[in-house]
Amino acid sequence: MQLAPETGQASITPAALQRRLDTRTKPQGSLGRLEALGVHIGQALDTDRPRFVQPTIMVFAADHGIAADGVSAFPSAVTAQMLLNYLAGGAAINVLARQHGLALRVIDAGVASDVPTHPGLTNRSIARGTRNFRVEAAMTQAQCLAALNAGRELADATLRAGSNALLLGEMGIGNTACAAILLHRRTGWPMADCVGRGTGLDDTALLRKTALLTEAAARIPHELSPQQTLTEFGGFEFAMLIGAILQAAQHRCIVVVDGFAVSVAALLAIEMDSAVASHCVFSHCSAEKAHRALLSRLDASPLLDLQLRLGEGSGAALAWPLVDATARLMTEMASFESAGVSDRAT
Amino acid sequence: MQLAPETGQASITPAALQRRLDTRTKPQGSLGRLEALGVHIGQALDTDRPRFVQPTIMVFAADHGIAADGVSAFPSAVTAQMLLNYLAGGAAINVLARQHGLALRVIDAGVASDVPTHPGLTNRSIARGTRNFRVEAAMTQAQCLAALNAGRELADATLRAGSNALLLGEMGIGNTACAAILLHRRTGWPMADCVGRGTGLDDTALLRKTALLTEAAARIPHELSPQQTLTEFGGFEFAMLIGAILQAAQHRCIVVVDGFAVSVAALLAIEMDSAVASHCVFSHCSAEKAHRALLSRLDASPLLDLQLRLGEGSGAALAWPLVDATARLMTEMASFESAGVSDRAT
Repeated sequence: MQLAPETGQASITPAALQRRLDTRTKPQGSLGRLEALGVHIGQALDTDRPRFVQPTIMVFAADHGIAADGVSAFPSAVTAQMLLNYLAGGAAINVLARQHGLALRVIDAGVASDVPTHPGLTNRSIARGTRNFRVEAAMTQAQCLAALNAGRELADATLRAGSNALLLGEMGIGNTACAAILLHRRTGWPMADCVGRGTGLDDTALLRKTALLTEAAARIPHELSPQQTLTEFGGFEFAMLIGAILQAAQHRCIVVVDGFAVSVAALLAIEMDSAVASHCVFSHCSAEKAHRALLSRLDASPLLDLQLRLGEGSGAALAWPLVDATARLMTEMASFESAGVSDRAT
Repeated sequence: MQLAPETGQASITPAALQRRLDTRTKPQGSLGRLEALGVHIGQALDTDRPRFVQPTIMVFAADHGIAADGVSAFPSAVTAQMLLNYLAGGAAINVLARQHGLALRVIDAGVASDVPTHPGLTNRSIARGTRNFRVEAAMTQAQCLAALNAGRELADATLRAGSNALLLGEMGIGNTACAAILLHRRTGWPMADCVGRGTGLDDTALLRKTALLTEAAARIPHELSPQQTLTEFGGFEFAMLIGAILQAAQHRCIVVVDGFAVSVAALLAIEMDSAVASHCVFSHCSAEKAHRALLSRLDASPLLDLQLRLGEGSGAALAWPLVDATARLMTEMASFESAGVSDRAT
């Protein structure tokens, strides 16, 4: 078997992939939306017999200066506490990773509290949280670049080690606020349409979050590039997610996008390099207010619609069996011919 | 540990189950619709630490006299051909069963063509297909009872052997026609609203199918009981599915309902014994026209909505990881207290 080059145009056509699906022992089109997913996966992996190898969840954790303004129902300390929970195996993402045999990598991208060294933790901390983007730039240009590169390097290492599927998640108290302002700045949508309840704000807190973010956005009235937006209003986990997504597009692989925050990262990554889109699978539409509109803008049909709003890659992990099933069905199902099944009415 | 009695009232309350969910390390409600599923599963299994054991797919296959009228895009011979495909491991349901470690039982409930004996096949054939319900009763009362009992016995044996989750599927050329007329007769909905394209009819064939079913339904103008309806217009796989669902409600277990045909079987089973509903999980909303309205009538929120229309238990198997994940999350996740995570803002 000839090794496919790591980059370059896919040689398999959508028509060939649909033909593969149509000759399997099932009525044509009967796998519904999984058939389009099959064509998408086949193109990304450049084969009509896709197989996933070493699917890996990468959870990027970081803290946010804006959290000091009280934009979350939880205190910043929870970011590090949850990180320890991941390392101890007690969080939702651990349960789902064990269920599906997914490798789990937890990355400290810039958590504010002390985090002990741990064999399960990758320390790529840029700083102990971003600065408060309501009053100043969240990070320096150098920090933004360093975080983008860290995300690229981590994805690259995982993919070079043989994985062809990254499931991307995040943890960071305050990061739906960060996602909301990034979305507002990149789309021009009204702030109130971009802001949601995060981990569970009430109406008063939601209005306060919206007001704080409106004030923050007003700090820079002129237009910014995607990377400038990230520097001014982003978070270290967003920058690493974007780096990871950008790097993934250099490989024959699939990126499974989790919820609202990772979808915002995907939006910026696609703005930076439109080739990224053909590698992204959007796992679910969450309960976070702006997620459905964002997915629609990205022309994405999420696989699940369960009102999840947990983050940490949990939606990506819950949708993973559907992605994997699609590949397996394409690869393992018999054809009408091989199984001796009539493929049409007589 | 005291053994719970096999039948009787669940002792665990929905409030206790929600409390279990709320004390896990996640924002309250953040598992979205899986939380309601968790309460549902916890009540059915009567525990706040549910674990699924030996989940088993049962695919009931049978032929239909009405198929001779040309209500399907495929000939009746395909039922037996697909059955052989299941036994050879080449169908979609085989791929999905392997992926998820599901046991697969294939039952000949009444296939018209010759089927060789095979260790993987359970022969409970009532007859070589039903009679054509357009001109006469599909089966005798004795056949209907025998099929209901066969379904009960098969489910009972599987559940007594230790399984606590049945995934129910079917195969039978012509059985969306059968499902449509059963639905029409049980709900009184206009026939045109009950009939869909099945495996892929075009507009002309769809009109013809509707006309044939309207003619069939007119054969008996007066109201029928659920069991009489099944005798007159049913199929052997429907009767066995109904028997299996009814029997499952006698055990502390979950029944995962596949697509349109199995949902119609669930409708009749719930009519016969309303206690059944608390054991059913509806896996998906299919592309078959009447499925969404039927699910709505059953007050069911399907887990997936992917335009599937394959049958054979494939939708149940695709949704299975979500059901299993819900149980695992309830059982395996750490609590805020045990993980040392703050559960609210300071």
